Amino acid sequence: MAGLLKRALRLRTALRCLCDYNMLSRSTATLSPVDFHSPFLTCSSEQVLASTRKLHAGADGSKVSPSAAPERLPFCRVTEEDLAFFRKILAGRTIVDPDLVEPSNVDWLKSVRGSSEVLLRPQTTEEVSQILSYCNSRNLAVNPQGGNTGLVGGSVPVYDEIILSTSLMNKILNFDSISGVLTCQAGCVLENLSFYLEERDYIMPLDLGAKGSCQIGGNVATNAGGLRLLRYGSLHGTVLGLELVLADGQVLDCLSTLRKDNTGYDLKQLFIGSEGTLGVITAVSILCPRKPKSVNVVFLGCETFEQLLKTFQLCKGMLGEILSAFEFLDSECMRLLNTHLKLPNPISDCPFYIVIETSGSDPTHDAQKLHNFLEEAMTSSLVSDGTVATEEAKIKALWSLRERVTEALTHDGFTYKYDISLPVERIYQLVTDMRKHLGNRAKSVVGYGHVGDGNLHLNVTSPSKDPALLAAIEPFVYEWTASCRGSISAEHGLGLKKRNYIYYSKQSQAVALMGNIKAMLDPKGILNPYKTLPDNLKQ
Amino acid sequence: MAGLLKRALRLRTALRCLCDYNMLSRSTATLSPVDFHSPFLTCSSEQVLASTRKLHAGADGSKVSPSAAPERLPFCRVTEEDLAFFRKILAGRTIVDPDLVEPSNVDWLKSVRGSSEVLLRPQTTEEVSQILSYCNSRNLAVNPQGGNTGLVGGSVPVYDEIILSTSLMNKILNFDSISGVLTCQAGCVLENLSFYLEERDYIMPLDLGAKGSCQIGGNVATNAGGLRLLRYGSLHGTVLGLELVLADGQVLDCLSTLRKDNTGYDLKQLFIGSEGTLGVITAVSILCPRKPKSVNVVFLGCETFEQLLKTFQLCKGMLGEILSAFEFLDSECMRLLNTHLKLPNPISDCPFYIVIETSGSDPTHDAQKLHNFLEEAMTSSLVSDGTVATEEAKIKALWSLRERVTEALTHDGFTYKYDISLPVERIYQLVTDMRKHLGNRAKSVVGYGHVGDGNLHLNVTSPSKDPALLAAIEPFVYEWTASCRGSISAEHGLGLKKRNYIYYSKQSQAVALMGNIKAMLDPKGILNPYKTLPDNLKQ
Repeated sequence: MAGLLKRALRLRTALRCLCDYNMLSRSTATLSPVDFHSPFLTCSSEQVLASTRKLHAGADGSKVSPSAAPERLPFCRVTEEDLAFFRKILAGRTIVDPDLVEPSNVDWLKSVRGSSEVLLRPQTTEEVSQILSYCNSRNLAVNPQGGNTGLVGGSVPVYDEIILSTSLMNKILNFDSISGVLTCQAGCVLENLSFYLEERDYIMPLDLGAKGSCQIGGNVATNAGGLRLLRYGSLHGTVLGLELVLADGQVLDCLSTLRKDNTGYDLKQLFIGSEGTLGVITAVSILCPRKPKSVNVVFLGCETFEQLLKTFQLCKGMLGEILSAFEFLDSECMRLLNTHLKLPNPISDCPFYIVIETSGSDPTHDAQKLHNFLEEAMTSSLVSDGTVATEEAKIKALWSLRERVTEALTHDGFTYKYDISLPVERIYQLVTDMRKHLGNRAKSVVGYGHVGDGNLHLNVTSPSKDPALLAAIEPFVYEWTASCRGSISAEHGLGLKKRNYIYYSKQSQAVALMGNIKAMLDPKGILNPYKTLPDNLKQ
Repeated sequence: MAGLLKRALRLRTALRCLCDYNMLSRSTATLSPVDFHSPFLTCSSEQVLASTRKLHAGADGSKVSPSAAPERLPFCRVTEEDLAFFRKILAGRTIVDPDLVEPSNVDWLKSVRGSSEVLLRPQTTEEVSQILSYCNSRNLAVNPQGGNTGLVGGSVPVYDEIILSTSLMNKILNFDSISGVLTCQAGCVLENLSFYLEERDYIMPLDLGAKGSCQIGGNVATNAGGLRLLRYGSLHGTVLGLELVLADGQVLDCLSTLRKDNTGYDLKQLFIGSEGTLGVITAVSILCPRKPKSVNVVFLGCETFEQLLKTFQLCKGMLGEILSAFEFLDSECMRLLNTHLKLPNPISDCPFYIVIETSGSDPTHDAQKLHNFLEEAMTSSLVSDGTVATEEAKIKALWSLRERVTEALTHDGFTYKYDISLPVERIYQLVTDMRKHLGNRAKSVVGYGHVGDGNLHLNVTSPSKDPALLAAIEPFVYEWTASCRGSISAEHGLGLKKRNYIYYSKQSQAVALMGNIKAMLDPKGILNPYKTLPDNLKQ
């Protein structure tokens, strides 16, 4: 064993020699993931108000965008009697102070704003049930809200919907250390669950940049993808059970903790990714993988996207079962990280950068696999430079280059965000075509994302909101995506902003069936109205 | 590298020395997986007819079992005009010869029999659409059928339902060697897909004993679990897209090949595991893993089930990402394999046997991980004997001990089959309790299954059908399972036989919602009537 360890150390040294290793000491100290989730990063609240009112009303002189909010539906307005009822069941947790309600009215991108006057903070499923039963009978619209980290305007009210926050539903209900199944309330923050599990030698099967704020209920409601999907698969596979409250207050108990259960239709699946429009998730059980004994991260540079794809193929073959992430960013992303966040490039300048993560059960084996892969990638000239990290702080520093691109973009200007799934060999062509198409009308056009999942994050910035630029981007981006049978929302969902673009990715019969399901489960349409389904379906 | 290979060879030798290795040369030649799927193994067709009529009619003097078929629903009967229509669209593929229809009327366990007079064999989605559109308008009931390998009477007609076979829909439509996504028609036989993929360096994410006959459409319709679920997860995660024909003939195109797509509700999930009651699956796209470069199988013996569970925990920790199966059988299973199939025990007699499979990308690393695990398991006395296989024929021979238990049971007598999910630490207690409970009323009570998934196959045999024995088993087995919040059907589904037991595993509100979904998608109830949903719901 000692011989093997020595060999591993030699391998690691070789890896370090193989690559440039100058970045990590410079950047780690400056990283603060909490900043990333602060709801107001760059604009004043007046700016927010002005731009979001315009978005909702389509009142800035331009053609009304399909993202703009539709007319308010004829829901009742909250009365003093309603407030009295809420105060009776949620003493001290029925919030009407406008300053306290405010952060829940605006999304963290500051792109949409509602005008809710009531924020409810239940602690139990029974309280959620009482709230919905009451709201349904009174025809009051409800906006379920988790960590409010969504990117498509799905998590905040559009008008005066009552905000039902799951933030106080943050108890871990059970963890079975034999099966690895965690059961918890919906309001548990993802990062807190990760900390809890790591102490028990397990990890969450999903990880994403917003982990410090996002809640597991919201993750499930939006079918969050994130950084570990390549390895552990989607929530449709890892979520074993859900407890839900339906629009009429009925509690649907599908909170199984079994890996296999073929007794009838798998109802919970319907709610995964339904963005709070079919029911409110109150508890989740999820299958968690063992904490890997060894994690390595490599940051590489490539001259062309074709080489990047070849590196991906090589990596799948040589790293096999220990590959846990294969992410990329382009040189424009690196420029924004340098400029706005002062994060230095840890390697020499390249058109494309790759972040590869391995997770395995034997550090020596993992190091050797990685060494063999890197040797092959460099000798065959697929990658031109690179650096490796095996220690936690350094791993975080390399990951932050990928994770903080979103934050860097918010400093670059008003950002038009697109989250596209495509056949993996096409994903960067869309960025190139968009750059050509927009010419000098955009400030920056950047591409990054999850190569392993065929998922591109395409972002276009401009100094301020620019309807003409938007008209140049859309529907171009959606038509381009549809022509490859791609998805116009890979992981962000549709929310308010993308609801009317659904037909670019879904057949009309499928959308009609979604409407029937909504009508069956929420006949009055009180749950998260104006979201997910297009306006031409009755809500 | 040469040094590493030498080391690997030494390791393999060590593994062989560590364990008894006497079985493989004796048994391989006798294995024939094809026999396993022959529809008539032990009973004469008179016996089948007698027993299945009794099952359907409940006419053997005993109290009518909840498994018995309900009264025929008022569907229309097939007329000459109907046949003329079918012959027009399916020339030569509208089968009415009773001898040719017969095999599709009886399930392979010979436990249930229908009396259909028409077997339709479409080749295209368009033909399926025309058939269903016609049947729906004429109120003719339809029994969709794949490989007819189901174990709960879900795949054959109960009365005179028209059999719609997908057997001729067996084309592979596309395989993307970069993403590993396979798209094919529903009638492709699982083993054929496996062969096709293996030539392209990929494998199917599922594998099961019935692979030589079962079809991918049926696998998806029943949410088949099988032997690789521990590693690659359930079909809810690996199936990326489905094409379906709804009861009214409408084609629902959800045949995405993307790993991520959050544009609206994930409709395809509803049909995974719906047993042909909500729509007919006509095409599937599925994410396939790379073919592992190294596969090892270990067959071990344990003195107690507690030791077996400790071995599982050790195995998860030490084999980590290369663990691809952890299965078990008890000494009663071994006795039946010896007696009925003349398969010898490859190791010394033990109360419990384990089959562990590893799949990885580096044979040297895998051999070393396995060596370390076996050394630890044997020195800590968790296992008392064992044998290892690395060559394909020997691997198949060891696997057959697990896979052929079902076949051995059919030779032991009339078999009452239970497929139960439980918290993993409880799974064998049910076998022990059942043995005590039945005393000498049963011929054999055996337990085997997927430890890694918490899935027990409990089987009870008797010399012939025995209503008194059945009454002793049920509802005991279901009540026991429900008391642990287990599932009364982990992977087999409900079909005809288990439909009325659904409430042991599902809350009544959930079952009512299933009924609403059925009514929405198939208002006349023509698709696979009498299956999955309990009789107290309108069909």
